Amino acid sequence: MDNLDSSGITEKKRRAAEWFASLRDQLCAAFETLETEADPALYGESAPGRFVRTDWQRSKTGTDEGGGTMALMHGKVFEKVGVHISTVHGEFSPEFRAQIPGAEEDPRFWAAGISLIAHTRNPHAPAAHMNTRMIATTKTWFGGGGDLNPMMDAYRGETHEDTLAFHAAFKSACDRHHEDYYPRFKAWCDEYFFLPHRGEARGVGGIFYDRHDSGDWEADFAFTQDVGKAFLGSYPALVGKRMNQKWTKDEREEQLIRRGRYAEFNLLYDRGTQFGLKTGGNVDAILSSLPPEAKWP
Amino acid sequence: MDNLDSSGITEKKRRAAEWFASLRDQLCAAFETLETEADPALYGESAPGRFVRTDWQRSKTGTDEGGGTMALMHGKVFEKVGVHISTVHGEFSPEFRAQIPGAEEDPRFWAAGISLIAHTRNPHAPAAHMNTRMIATTKTWFGGGGDLNPMMDAYRGETHEDTLAFHAAFKSACDRHHEDYYPRFKAWCDEYFFLPHRGEARGVGGIFYDRHDSGDWEADFAFTQDVGKAFLGSYPALVGKRMNQKWTKDEREEQLIRRGRYAEFNLLYDRGTQFGLKTGGNVDAILSSLPPEAKWP
Repeated sequence: MDNLDSSGITEKKRRAAEWFASLRDQLCAAFETLETEADPALYGESAPGRFVRTDWQRSKTGTDEGGGTMALMHGKVFEKVGVHISTVHGEFSPEFRAQIPGAEEDPRFWAAGISLIAHTRNPHAPAAHMNTRMIATTKTWFGGGGDLNPMMDAYRGETHEDTLAFHAAFKSACDRHHEDYYPRFKAWCDEYFFLPHRGEARGVGGIFYDRHDSGDWEADFAFTQDVGKAFLGSYPALVGKRMNQKWTKDEREEQLIRRGRYAEFNLLYDRGTQFGLKTGGNVDAILSSLPPEAKWP
Repeated sequence: MDNLDSSGITEKKRRAAEWFASLRDQLCAAFETLETEADPALYGESAPGRFVRTDWQRSKTGTDEGGGTMALMHGKVFEKVGVHISTVHGEFSPEFRAQIPGAEEDPRFWAAGISLIAHTRNPHAPAAHMNTRMIATTKTWFGGGGDLNPMMDAYRGETHEDTLAFHAAFKSACDRHHEDYYPRFKAWCDEYFFLPHRGEARGVGGIFYDRHDSGDWEADFAFTQDVGKAFLGSYPALVGKRMNQKWTKDEREEQLIRRGRYAEFNLLYDRGTQFGLKTGGNVDAILSSLPPEAKWP
């Protein structure tokens, strides 16, 4: 098999999947560390939260195979956080083929990725989403991004220090690869994470990119790794900075209403959610993005 | 104008809109009566809830006009209940015309209806939805239905007495008009209010019908009135029967999780929600269906 694999795709798939698992381990470790630093005066004396990992297998229909591992934590700082990885392969159904690069020639695909959604208990600490993936059909590409979702209006400004810090991390990661990346992928994120019926953004942005194939797989893989590292280097620090600030009942209420908008986006517009539910993805993993508690008063 | 109106459509529209407003008044009165019967031991001594009515106008773009009245109550028994009426007219956009009976010949439409969603505070008392409407293009038809959404598994059986009472009311209304109506419209409801990704029904059903035009407008209007009356005669009675039963924290938790599934259905699948948000409907009225509080633990 490897003798025929002149593009080294088998090795590329292995390295990408290995990276997603490694990034998962680092993120889970960072979040568990924050759990141990939770102020007992705010969060009580109970034990810090720890991730619980659950393996799942894709239901095999025809050639569809693979699976993943859900890592979920219901903690003190993190009311609910999921860091999931998966590696699946199969065939795109006829309805999807025309929309997917390289799938019209041959419907087979392979996909691996990491997906993270963090809902913090403290309304001062932002929620966040991060996802990166590698897809291979007759072509290969990367996609993903990360975006910050502060829960209170006071934190939702473009020039708020937390927003600036988050964006600075992604700009730095992007600029190491191409000067166009940050402005393009920031704009893409702003356009994607928008609720037209509310006329408002889901959060304060970040970056989003898809079908990313510069022609240099090594460079694109390195970029995707840097996106993950940028998130790892910025989001846990922002939570650490805010998590031990006191909050009021009114602030909690504001957070719960904002979480309702978050749920609206994910269920009405998010292509990953719609795609996953329609292609027999793992429902528990897909919908673990939904907030632990939300209000529509 | 009336001289040319040989089908009497102007008078039909007036009578339909008047009925929806009258049904709204009767439903609001029934719910307010229940509020006064709330046991203070369970709901406290505060004043019973009362509906607040808010008029709205459709944003006029081209020939689009009309508006409606939202009636919302945040009460003791009813944590959140909306009973909205609207009467709008305009033109279907080119993308919708092919899907709508009679709209290819002439894109103008007129629509009036009533839409109700009730979320009770007590997990023993079911939530419910009811909606009926009349639409006129070059054709005219009615649509709507009602379905019961008990929040706890113990109440979600086909043979639970509350389920049976709700269905009996609709069967009786249907059977007065045509022996086929109840089995057809019950099956349509079961098919429509289903969450494929969960493999489960939203509630315990009721009836659902659409594009209903038997050729006899008077008969179809009488049927739609009977559907409204069946809901009025059954749902408030079911709430009245359950609302003063004590509930536990665990039962409340089960209710909040079931409400999350309810929100999933409305945002992922409900055609009325999707249609309304995409055609510039009143966002507050459309999304008032979402539960006041929900959990995805």
